[in-house]
Amino acid sequence: MPQKIIIDTDPGIDDAMALLFAHRAPSIDLVGITTTYGNATIEQTTRNARYLVDRFGLSCPVHMGSGRPLFADPEPPADFVHGSDGLGEAGLVIPELVDDGGDAVAFLIDTLRASPGEITIVAVGRMTNLALALSRAPDVASLAKAVVIMGGALGRGGFGGNVTPCAEANIIGDPHAADRVLRASWPVTMVGLDVTMKTVMTPPRVDELKRRGGETGEFLHAISRFYQAFYTNNHGLEGFAVHDSSAVAYVLAPELFTLEAGGLRVVTEGIAYGQTLLAPAGKRYHLPVWQGLAEQSACVDVDSDGVLDLYMSTLLDG
Amino acid sequence: MPQKIIIDTDPGIDDAMALLFAHRAPSIDLVGITTTYGNATIEQTTRNARYLVDRFGLSCPVHMGSGRPLFADPEPPADFVHGSDGLGEAGLVIPELVDDGGDAVAFLIDTLRASPGEITIVAVGRMTNLALALSRAPDVASLAKAVVIMGGALGRGGFGGNVTPCAEANIIGDPHAADRVLRASWPVTMVGLDVTMKTVMTPPRVDELKRRGGETGEFLHAISRFYQAFYTNNHGLEGFAVHDSSAVAYVLAPELFTLEAGGLRVVTEGIAYGQTLLAPAGKRYHLPVWQGLAEQSACVDVDSDGVLDLYMSTLLDG
Repeated sequence: MPQKIIIDTDPGIDDAMALLFAHRAPSIDLVGITTTYGNATIEQTTRNARYLVDRFGLSCPVHMGSGRPLFADPEPPADFVHGSDGLGEAGLVIPELVDDGGDAVAFLIDTLRASPGEITIVAVGRMTNLALALSRAPDVASLAKAVVIMGGALGRGGFGGNVTPCAEANIIGDPHAADRVLRASWPVTMVGLDVTMKTVMTPPRVDELKRRGGETGEFLHAISRFYQAFYTNNHGLEGFAVHDSSAVAYVLAPELFTLEAGGLRVVTEGIAYGQTLLAPAGKRYHLPVWQGLAEQSACVDVDSDGVLDLYMSTLLDG
Repeated sequence: MPQKIIIDTDPGIDDAMALLFAHRAPSIDLVGITTTYGNATIEQTTRNARYLVDRFGLSCPVHMGSGRPLFADPEPPADFVHGSDGLGEAGLVIPELVDDGGDAVAFLIDTLRASPGEITIVAVGRMTNLALALSRAPDVASLAKAVVIMGGALGRGGFGGNVTPCAEANIIGDPHAADRVLRASWPVTMVGLDVTMKTVMTPPRVDELKRRGGETGEFLHAISRFYQAFYTNNHGLEGFAVHDSSAVAYVLAPELFTLEAGGLRVVTEGIAYGQTLLAPAGKRYHLPVWQGLAEQSACVDVDSDGVLDLYMSTLLDG
């Protein structure tokens, strides 16, 4: 039986890569896409999600989510990473939005209630929609099979944050939402920069996708030119980090990841604003804030080649 | 020429180990001890420092420092780690304090001014005295040869904080002071839990100190029984972490440590209170708080056996 997943996403170049990865994986049943903001505005990410669904036959609904953080001041979209259209300014003709698909938060709640214990939510953008679902319907925390998030950084392996020395973009974009999501009683696995920054898609792999991957491969090559330029200019990387697709890879092959168990919190004030913190399971701290947290998991290491090989084989042989 | 150092310390079991290590190292000229609080009260740590100087012939002045943090609420002493007398409840007869030695902050300022560019400050407790010196005499930042601190944690190698998941005791004990010390223009090297937690003094080494180290070795064995019990009960460690002596080892043999350069800050609010953060040199962040920081160094890895061997040879062959 394929695993049913909902992807909460802000396409976004690496989001598009993750959506097509999930779509092509035989063991995943993509039952819906909910949209969030960050890589582009909520209108643009919803248009982009609809474009991907229509062009590549994803045959699942798209629902537009919240367009701004719970409490924090909104930040401008990350167009310097994803381009002004969120998909790498690759000359795509992306239709205007005719229908927003209805309320993403209601869709999350209804779908979880309709299939208790069956749905994994893969959240790869700001976590505002998930926090709103928890707020509007606290019972959803007991209904999700699992929540896999791409976001955060624990400082392992020398990778700090990508917005501040300690904060990652998806988390700092709505830290209050992320804190609620990570503290809820559903089982969360955090796939953060500690593993995604060491999983680098190099030019030979992207070229192979273009050469052998048909229309999907050519599309992935085209949209990732802008993303590659960002990584070359800002990180000196020949290749680019595989962020969102690493969360999908975790769903498909958790054995490729090394986990650490513990409580997870997000900092919502001061210079560490937007940082994720892990309180390792089994350790005791005297401050009440670190006591009684739900036990979650965070990826602290990864078989990077395994993830990249899985991506390639899914796109090329699937 | 031996290196002139002042040790700012709160003896403390591992502080005593570090003081005797520095005393026995031929390449160190210990020109003074300033006391701080944390492992015990300021009165007790000053008594303990004076006891060590008198009993082991350290022939340097002891000056009592500030007994409480700059702004934070004082915490009770860590007697569960160091014992009620700060030296492991080993039955020592530690005299009452007759003379406090005079103002530690004034001593720091006067000594730095008298020997510009010659003095290395090794600060292995709360950094209140150093912050007060910077505040009272800003010129000292340009007069110290170097500042080596034991404190903080960057999350490398899986070691978070020891008081909270991200905060280490010396820093969280006075985070406002530590932030001032780390941001000042004197060259700081942070020797934190990232390296000290992986440098473990095992029972065979402590037994050898007792057997072959004369009165000093027997003393070190005796005071460390309490400390060992704490590490056994709380960390499941056969052996104990070498915190303060690692800062002295850095002065003696910096080549044993792997450094990372960057700006250093301390979090003074919220759930990450007391955390040290490194903004890696060469990376740019758009938030002003991460711009224009003094470039400091932090130890991110260590040749642990090298540090332990250096300790043993200095105490046994010195």
